[in-house]
Order: sequence, then structure tokens, then C-alpha cells
Amino acid sequence: MTTQAENTVGFIGLGQMGLGMATRLLESGQSLVVYNRTQDKARPLADAGARIANHPADTATKGGIVISMLADDAAVEGLFDDQLLARLGPGGLHLSMSTLGPATATRLAERHKAHGVDYVACPVFGRPDAARAGKLWLCLSGPASARTRLETLLAAMGQGVYEFGDDPAAANVTKLAGNFLIASAIEAMSEAYSLAEKHGVDADAVHQLLTQTLFACPIYQNYGKAIVEQRFTPPGFTLRLGAKDMRLVQDAARAAEMPMPLASLLGDRFLRMLAGGQGDIDWTGIAADQRQAAGLISQ
Amino acid sequence: MTTQAENTVGFIGLGQMGLGMATRLLESGQSLVVYNRTQDKARPLADAGARIANHPADTATKGGIVISMLADDAAVEGLFDDQLLARLGPGGLHLSMSTLGPATATRLAERHKAHGVDYVACPVFGRPDAARAGKLWLCLSGPASARTRLETLLAAMGQGVYEFGDDPAAANVTKLAGNFLIASAIEAMSEAYSLAEKHGVDADAVHQLLTQTLFACPIYQNYGKAIVEQRFTPPGFTLRLGAKDMRLVQDAARAAEMPMPLASLLGDRFLRMLAGGQGDIDWTGIAADQRQAAGLISQ
Amino acid sequence: MTTQAENTVGFIGLGQMGLGMATRLLESGQSLVVYNRTQDKARPLADAGARIANHPADTATKGGIVISMLADDAAVEGLFDDQLLARLGPGGLHLSMSTLGPATATRLAERHKAHGVDYVACPVFGRPDAARAGKLWLCLSGPASARTRLETLLAAMGQGVYEFGDDPAAANVTKLAGNFLIASAIEAMSEAYSLAEKHGVDADAVHQLLTQTLFACPIYQNYGKAIVEQRFTPPGFTLRLGAKDMRLVQDAARAAEMPMPLASLLGDRFLRMLAGGQGDIDWTGIAADQRQAAGLISQ
Amino acid sequence: MTTQAENTVGFIGLGQMGLGMATRLLESGQSLVVYNRTQDKARPLADAGARIANHPADTATKGGIVISMLADDAAVEGLFDDQLLARLGPGGLHLSMSTLGPATATRLAERHKAHGVDYVACPVFGRPDAARAGKLWLCLSGPASARTRLETLLAAMGQGVYEFGDDPAAANVTKLAGNFLIASAIEAMSEAYSLAEKHGVDADAVHQLLTQTLFACPIYQNYGKAIVEQRFTPPGFTLRLGAKDMRLVQDAARAAEMPMPLASLLGDRFLRMLAGGQGDIDWTGIAADQRQAAGLISQ
Repeated sequence: MTTQAENTVGFIGLGQMGLGMATRLLESGQSLVVYNRTQDKARPLADAGARIANHPADTATKGGIVISMLADDAAVEGLFDDQLLARLGPGGLHLSMSTLGPATATRLAERHKAHGVDYVACPVFGRPDAARAGKLWLCLSGPASARTRLETLLAAMGQGVYEFGDDPAAANVTKLAGNFLIASAIEAMSEAYSLAEKHGVDADAVHQLLTQTLFACPIYQNYGKAIVEQRFTPPGFTLRLGAKDMRLVQDAARAAEMPMPLASLLGDRFLRMLAGGQGDIDWTGIAADQRQAAGLISQ
Repeated sequence: MTTQAENTVGFIGLGQMGLGMATRLLESGQSLVVYNRTQDKARPLADAGARIANHPADTATKGGIVISMLADDAAVEGLFDDQLLARLGPGGLHLSMSTLGPATATRLAERHKAHGVDYVACPVFGRPDAARAGKLWLCLSGPASARTRLETLLAAMGQGVYEFGDDPAAANVTKLAGNFLIASAIEAMSEAYSLAEKHGVDADAVHQLLTQTLFACPIYQNYGKAIVEQRFTPPGFTLRLGAKDMRLVQDAARAAEMPMPLASLLGDRFLRMLAGGQGDIDWTGIAADQRQAAGLISQ
Repeated sequence: MTTQAENTVGFIGLGQMGLGMATRLLESGQSLVVYNRTQDKARPLADAGARIANHPADTATKGGIVISMLADDAAVEGLFDDQLLARLGPGGLHLSMSTLGPATATRLAERHKAHGVDYVACPVFGRPDAARAGKLWLCLSGPASARTRLETLLAAMGQGVYEFGDDPAAANVTKLAGNFLIASAIEAMSEAYSLAEKHGVDADAVHQLLTQTLFACPIYQNYGKAIVEQRFTPPGFTLRLGAKDMRLVQDAARAAEMPMPLASLLGDRFLRMLAGGQGDIDWTGIAADQRQAAGLISQ
Repeated sequence: MTTQAENTVGFIGLGQMGLGMATRLLESGQSLVVYNRTQDKARPLADAGARIANHPADTATKGGIVISMLADDAAVEGLFDDQLLARLGPGGLHLSMSTLGPATATRLAERHKAHGVDYVACPVFGRPDAARAGKLWLCLSGPASARTRLETLLAAMGQGVYEFGDDPAAANVTKLAGNFLIASAIEAMSEAYSLAEKHGVDADAVHQLLTQTLFACPIYQNYGKAIVEQRFTPPGFTLRLGAKDMRLVQDAARAAEMPMPLASLLGDRFLRMLAGGQGDIDWTGIAADQRQAAGLISQ
């Protein structure tokens, strides 16, 4: 049916996050045509009713919507090329949900505009289980009319939408600010708990006190627990991705010509972990480097 | 009445915090004899029924309890001299509620022991209004029997007590860990919000998103709001005291022979503020240095 | 004469450095065809016998040599486009003397190779007066046969050539390492001399001692003197260029997946200066930020 | 003979440095009475004509001179107690050649003054071989008349004397500034050479270039060579002593209420080495931590 085809939305990128989000959309009644570089990952979605595209551009229909959830800036810039954008064409909309640098968002928005396509940024907060449950927090920015058009889709994926105006870069700056705050909290707990440990104080007791009182919020409670228990696998969010985001934060600071000393410290901490071959553990794993620095783990 | 005198507790140090705590104790029915270097500050307590001591040692009775809430390690070490400790004597107890370094606590505990006096550390989390309302969070460590003896007093001052065993240094390490986490959060928000501002993104909107979701806890909500509004006076906790605590954290790290790079970064940030004559504003004021660094305030 | 034309070398980029180098080449008997974006700067060279090109590609002759001395990576990548490289063609040689990132050098070498052109990196150490006097220190890397071909030209420009093998990226890594060492020395002296000053010790006397003994070398002697005298204009090398080089160092560290904490510290120091509108003073001017941080200059 | 006794100078502290300095003084014809906590170390000096004291105070004669070269502030403050100072008495002079904090120097000067003893600070630059050869560089400050009295002794020990006025703290600030500059150079080379190595560039070739040109001075040449060759034992100056000096630098910055971010970075680097049990290797050994951070040594 034409109507069916018109309503079908494209979805590109079926990693841990994308798979959860696409599944959730299907459950909400949304018809999808999905693409992933390694097609295996798309199979569970086919079983759930999605159509599989053999090529990224095949997810696009004239004037339709394509959602992307990809690993990094290069992947998005590579896939959303002139061919795909020409297929979307005037009236088309790209809902870009990856964590990207603001400069990339600006570049992409311009390229989309040349094809008459709206570029809307909507990076998300939440881990894969939240994606699967439709409980993500969504940071939205882009042309106002395009944002309105997305209401139903966003409602299926998130438990709340925060809007940051017309500039697609804005939502990405916000997302990076958030990830920077999380990494900072991990660093701070890593240092504080290793201090306690070295002074013979029970780090878990310190953690209990702080996260039942001043820091009674999910980031400190969940990440802090992983740090206390030294449980860095399986990763919820890998150190390699964390390193990539710190790089994006540092690049955003450079572009704005301003220092961010804590971001620099985190950047170096992550680079030391990557150099040591630890890119695949969870990003709370920077606590292991701090414990080694403190002499709590032998070198 | 002898009983009355025996039950009277000494209280030394009537700054913003001490005054609130002593007032709260009086309200709970506890009789107090109070001392402050500048006697003016004791007057409101006299009106509320406290006896004023002219000398610190006059707050002590044989085998009694003295509570202290003083500005720094030197003040506690200076006031709790042999004269005062001899007056307290065997069976006496010093409830030391200031934020001190663990090495100071260990030194004090030894000096007290020589006089048969129990030294109990109980630094607190909370601002002056929480002290006045008996809603502090208390970190307790010291000899077990002494801790038991303090239950009623602590219940009057705090909304919760977290215990850290027999070593008085332990509660101080915990308190320093907590203050370090707070300062780290202030630094992280200072950098993140200035990044948003430089990219033309509304820092308050970023703050709303983050503190309604991942960071929905008092430290981020309250301190973050002060940062967004650039409201650093009147101080709830001065930059000078914050600098002192960062120094204690750095000293504790040195004593344990371990690096704490974020503590070092914070130590330098606070020193820059002190050098610039900003010691008397609130410690969230490090955000002003970050805004200046970012070129958002002219030098 | 054909011979004349064949021997003529192209020279692109007549900033402070390039102008001195080109003048020196003319003095040595080398015929030149020069290009600069703003032609005014080329006039003194015309008077000295150089031919002025109206377009960058006009500096190239089939199988000839073009030297470039430009402000940054983007300028070199922009000017050495397919048009210019096609003009140089097989047997041509580009002697690239700007300070570039190693990744840029690798990219440029590949692009040149596609046109049969040799790409030789030869960044230099020395200020404009050394360039004018032919007293630069030269870091050379690139194809061995191409290096041999350059001996006469290099001898005219430098007082010494250090060779780093066939990989054009190598000379650039070396140059960045050197600039990083210089910036580190500036930072160290800035901190040390402000410490002396704050303790009431004559910073110039400290400088004399150190640079007549342990640090009796040009960098400490000359830059240290500028720091002591707080003389940051006119710039020998601007803060903006220093910031660019720190960025290249940090990017090289990232690319190699390794931390460089001192480079990060310097990067932030330079960014603070740029944010404060100080990009056009000499890069020793980071000492002014340190003096302000120490409260020696009012904010 | 009385004259002999009057001319005899006390010397306390016979570590690697002190032993060389005392030997040199004996060679110059100076009679000495020496003390070291472990008497074994004094034996070679006895063979060379020195008298051995069984107690520190026995090195002092009324109105005489005692030289000290000890490990740290606590050692000097512990040995120069009221007993020793009373023995020296009015007209006595203490030539204090250890690297101490300026606050310690000020405290010591006051204590000496109460006994009528002049306190002169004269920390030194140079390794044990320079001490043995009388080729140290000397930083001198203290009362002018006392400095004059020391000319012959200083000429025997040093190849040059730099004077910093009447305040004994001044020479110590200068010495700390110098050690901070050395540690900064070690850090900078550690990072730069590991960057070269990771990019496949010969670090020794980079070292040759830089130390034959811009950095042609002993610190870069000698320490850089040790870094390139990864030769950190036997130590010329241990990491533990380097860590102590960085602590003194940081304390001096704190006392002056000013940030020194590079000193903080170095402090943390040294602490990581101490935590890893590396306190006894040479302080150039921080290069090993940087190589590990870069993934050039397996963790």
C-alpha cells in the first residue's frame, strides 16, 4: 500500500542502542525498513516485522524520515551521502540520534539543506536496557516544524524530550556536556574511593553514605557501585567510546577557543587506558588505572 | 544540681555551623556551656539558656563531653591543649565535628588518650540551615563505647549517622572524600556550562535536563543553579574553606603516597581564586574563573 | 634561457620566516619565482631579482622544485592542489618547510606521489633573524634521492641539517617535539619565576643563576629574559601559532593513542590566552597568565 | 692548639653529597669535625684527617661554624636543637646546604637568632661528582657579615656563588625553582621522546638534534641521554628525593597562595612512581611511567 510505504521510516545502525530503539519503534506500531553494515544484526528485527534494506539509501523514501544511530561522526558523514539525501529529497527528514560533535552537526545540516532535507539532532541519554524499554532521555534540536513532525516517534523511544531550539549543533553540545559530567563523576569517585582504600577505610561504606545523601542519583549510585566492585565487564558503554566522546568535548572546547582542564585530564586518562589495551571494558574502568596509580594493584 | 552539671555538655566554636548545631541541642533539652573566641557570637545562645564560658577549658567537666566545631586543624590542636584535656580527664569525651585531616585526627586521638579522654570524630555534611534544623548527615568514627554514649546528642543534630569504625581518622577521610566529590562536581558543571554558553546553548536548559534526569540530586541541583545564575554571595561555604579542604585532600593523598590529579587541578583552581582576592565568596565561585578563562567575562 | 628557467625554484609563503628564507636564497645566487596571497609582501623580493607569480601554480615548472613556508596545514593542503601538482609533474619536488602535523604530511605525500612529485618535509628551528641570516636548523625527511637533490638549497638556508629518514612525517614529529619542549620551558620558567617573585626573590637573579649554569642554552636565556622583563611584543612567534602547534602535538598524541599531560596543560594555557584576546603577542606571553594567576597582576 | 680548634669547622651529614663536600674541604686544608648518624660513612674522612664526633652537638664550638648537608627539613630541624645551638652560641654560624623549604629556613633562622647564631642558607646544584671536585654551583643568602665570613669555605666547594640577599629563605626558593625546572625538563623530554618513539621516529636522533642546538646545555644533554637509554640506576638523585622537592615546591606555592599547575602535574607523576615502589631509581625514571602510559612498556 502506498500509505504503508509513505509511513515507513528508515532506521540505520543496529548496535546495542539502535537495536533496542528500533525494536521499541516496531512494538509501538511503526513500520520500519532497517539497515546495518553487518546484516546479521538486523535479523531479529525482520522477525518482528521490519523490512531489511541491502543498501543505506534503500531506507529512504521521497519526503520520508530516516533515523540513524551510528558509532561516530565519520560513519554518519559517510552514510548520509548525496545518493541517500537525493532519495530522501525535499520534505525528507533525517533524525540523527548518534552522539556527534557540534561541528559535524553543522556540516551535516548544510549538506542536507542542499537536498531540501531537514536535519534534526536528537542524541540520547540511557543505556541499552533503557533504549529497549523506550525510557531514553532525548535532547532535541533542529528546525521547529521538523521537530513537531517527530513527536510520535520520539514518544515511543523516550521518557522525556528536552528541546534546545533550531540549531542542530545545540543538542549535540548538550549531550557532550552530559557525557563529560558523567566521566567527571567517574574520575572523582575513582580518586575518592582509592583514597579511602589507601587509608584503610571501607570504600563501599563511603559510597553508601554519599549516594544515599548528597549524591542520591543514578549516575553516582550505579557507576559508583561498579567502581567499588571493580566490575568493568561486560561494558555498558566502552572505554573506547568514552575516549571518543572526550575527544569530541575537547574539540568543541578548542573550536570555541576555551580551556577545559578537567576534560583534558579525562582525555589523558582515557588515552592511557587505550594505550594499555583496555578499550573494550566499561568506561568506569578508568578506576582501575587510578587504583594502579595508587599502588593498590601491582603494575 | 550535681546531675545538671554532670549532664551539661561543652560546645566550642560558634561559627555559622556551630551556632546552628548548639541552638538545636538547646532546643532538644540539652544544657550547654559554650565558648567562642569572639564572645558576641555566644549571646543568642545565652538568651536560649546556655552558660557562657570565658575560657575554652571552662567548657570541660571531669568525665564530661565537649563538642567542637572549629575552622581548621590548627584551631582544634590549639584549643584542645593539656589544660583542657586535664579538666576533661579520664572518662571524658571530645566529639570533634570539624573537617580535619586524618593525620590531625590521629595526633589528637593520641594526645587525648594520654589524658584518658576519648576522641571521637564526627564531621558533618550540610549547610548552616541544615545544622539549625538538626538535619545534618553525620560521619562517625572512634571508640565503640564512646560512640554509643553519643547517640542522643547525635540524634538531635543529624538526620542520619554513618559509622566508620574505631579509627577517628576514618570519618575524616570520608568527609574529605565527600567534599572532594562536591568540588569536582562544581568544577565539572563550571566547565560544561561554560562550554554550552560559548556554543550559544542556554546553560540553564542544559542544567534543567541534567538535574532532572541523570543528576537528580541536591549537589547538582543546588550548586548547579548557583553556577547558572552566577550567584556566589552570600557564601554558604567560602572558597577559602574549600581551598583548605582541597589542601587536606591533597595532604591525605601525599600521606598515602598516591596521586589524585583531579584534586591537584582543584587545588590550583582554588589557589588562583585566593590569589585574585576571591576567598570570601562561595566555593561555587570557581565557575567565575572558568567563565573568565573562556573569555565570557573580560579579564 | 631554458637553463635559467629550469633552475628557477618556486617559493610560496612570504610571512616573516618565508621572506627571510627567500631573500637568503636570492643572495646565494638562486633564481626564484615567488608567490604570496597578499602580493605586497613579495615586492622586496622583486627588487632583489625574484619573479612574482600571480597564482600559486605559476611557481611550478615541470620536474622543478617548489618550496613552501605557510601558516598551517590547511594552507599547504589548499595550495598544493591537483593543478599545482600537475604542473610540477613527474620528477618534481615539493620542499615543505612549514610546521605541519605528521598526519598531514602523510596525506600530502600520497597526493604528491599520485602526480609523480616527491614530497620532502623540512620544518625549521629559528626565528626570523636566523632565517634572514641562513642560520636555521633544519629537520629533514623524505625520499633519499630527493634529499640529495636539495643539498645546495638547504645549505643556503640553514647552519645545519638533521636527517630523519624516508618518511616525511618523521621530520614533522621531530619539529613538534622541539616546539613542545620550548613551550614546556616557557611554562616552567613562568611558574618558577612567579614563585620567586611572590616570595620576594629577584626573578632576574634567579634567571641569571640558572641560565649561566644548568640551563646555559639559547631557549632558556632568550625566552627567560623576555619573561623576566615581561616583554611580549613585538612577537617573534605569536601565541596563536603556539596554540596551533600545541594542537598539532595533542593531535599527534591522540593519533598515537598516548597521553601527554604536559601538552594538555599547555594546550589549555594557550586556549585561555586566546579566549582573553591575547593571540597576537609572543608565546612567552603565557607568563602573563601565570603572573595573573599568582595575583601579581590584578585581574 | 686553641687556634686549630677555633678554625675547625663542624660538618653534619655524610650522604653522597656531604661526603664529597667534606672530602673537598679537607683537601683544601680545612680541618673538620664530622658527624653522621651511621658512623661507618665517616671513616674515609677520618683517614683523611677529620675528627669524628659521637654526637651532633660535638661538632660545634663556641662562635664556630657548622655546615649541614642533610636529607630533609625534619632532619635539620631535629639536629639543630637548643643543645647544639647553645654550644655554637653568640658569634656561631650554621651554613645550611640542604634543599629545604623556605618556611623551614625562616623558622630555623629565628631559632638560631635566639641563640645568637647566624643562619646562612646555601643549597647547591650539582651531583656527587661535582661535590667531590669542588665544582658545585652555590645559592647563598643570609646575613651579609656571615656571608663574607664564608668566602674561603665556599670557594673550596663551589665553582661559583650566586648571592640572594639577607633572607635565608631566598636561596631556598631559588634552589627549589631550579629543581622544579629540572623536573619539568625531564617531564617534557619524557613526553616528547615517547611521542617520537610511538610515531616510529628515532628518539636518540631527536635528542641529538635538540641538544646540539636549542637545548645545548647540561640538563638536557645528560638527563635526556639517560631517558633515551632508559638508564635509571644507579641513581644520581633518587625519585624519592625528587618527590620530596616537588612537595616543597608545592608547599611554597601554597604558602604564597598561587597555583603552579606544572608542579602539580609533576607531584602526581612522582607520587605514582612512589606508589609503584620506584622511589629508589633516578628521578629521570619518570620517563618509564610515561613510556608505560604510552603503551611502550606492557603494564
